[in-house]
Amino acid sequence: MEQRISLVTLGVADLARAKDFYTALGWRGQEVEETVFYQAGGLALVLWDRGKLAADCGLPAGPPAGFDGIVLAHNVRSDAEVDALLEAAQRAGGTVTSPAAVNPVGFYSGAFTDPDGHAWEVAHNPGFTLAEDGSLVLPDFGG
Amino acid sequence: MEQRISLVTLGVADLARAKDFYTALGWRGQEVEETVFYQAGGLALVLWDRGKLAADCGLPAGPPAGFDGIVLAHNVRSDAEVDALLEAAQRAGGTVTSPAAVNPVGFYSGAFTDPDGHAWEVAHNPGFTLAEDGSLVLPDFGG
Repeated sequence: MEQRISLVTLGVADLARAKDFYTALGWRGQEVEETVFYQAGGLALVLWDRGKLAADCGLPAGPPAGFDGIVLAHNVRSDAEVDALLEAAQRAGGTVTSPAAVNPVGFYSGAFTDPDGHAWEVAHNPGFTLAEDGSLVLPDFGG
Repeated sequence: MEQRISLVTLGVADLARAKDFYTALGWRGQEVEETVFYQAGGLALVLWDRGKLAADCGLPAGPPAGFDGIVLAHNVRSDAEVDALLEAAQRAGGTVTSPAAVNPVGFYSGAFTDPDGHAWEVAHNPGFTLAEDGSLVLPDFGG
């Protein structure tokens, strides 16, 4: 298995609501057959019906839990960008679940959930290099 | 918000078990402070304690649901690679939840869950270009 993720698909209850949320945050994608695809660097973020997504994986959808067990992180280049994105997410209909603060590791971060409860951490972590094109390069932790 | 995902963090119940699973599939990462970081193209895949991950986002962890509501996809270059990866996942302690088959969209795919129940779709979708470096480029759907 090569070390890559090709797509991250978020199961949604209401595609229009989810699309409106990400549009308000500045995402631009393509909607085709009740699915929205966003190019996000070298992979795609996808919005698709939650029940169909579960069925596609051979899993019972069940009711959404309060916590997915998976968190996406969006790293930015300044503390001010963390604040601005959390405010934008709240205005767009998301919920700030963890207000921005210096976390125990020592960098500034916060978190929000989208209208379907999917969690995003927003972080300004100078220890993780963000390239010009937005790609992230892990440091050598020297382990 | 720029269109990118910086990290995808999987909440795990047993870090050693989760790390062993991904190691068996060929992933090589760095473990630091009870967290494993894998460079995966322009982002990082991370394994971290499920309860700490939820707390970090200000969410109650709750018990793991049968379906996260989020699915990761790993696209490959041939049908045979789909078969091989599903077999490897099963051998490594995962569960094939959807055997490989031509799906309704018309391409060959299947799905497995890792030991914590996180779902991966494995797909050979010639309609989505896989670059030499493994990055995925969405087609113009002409919408």
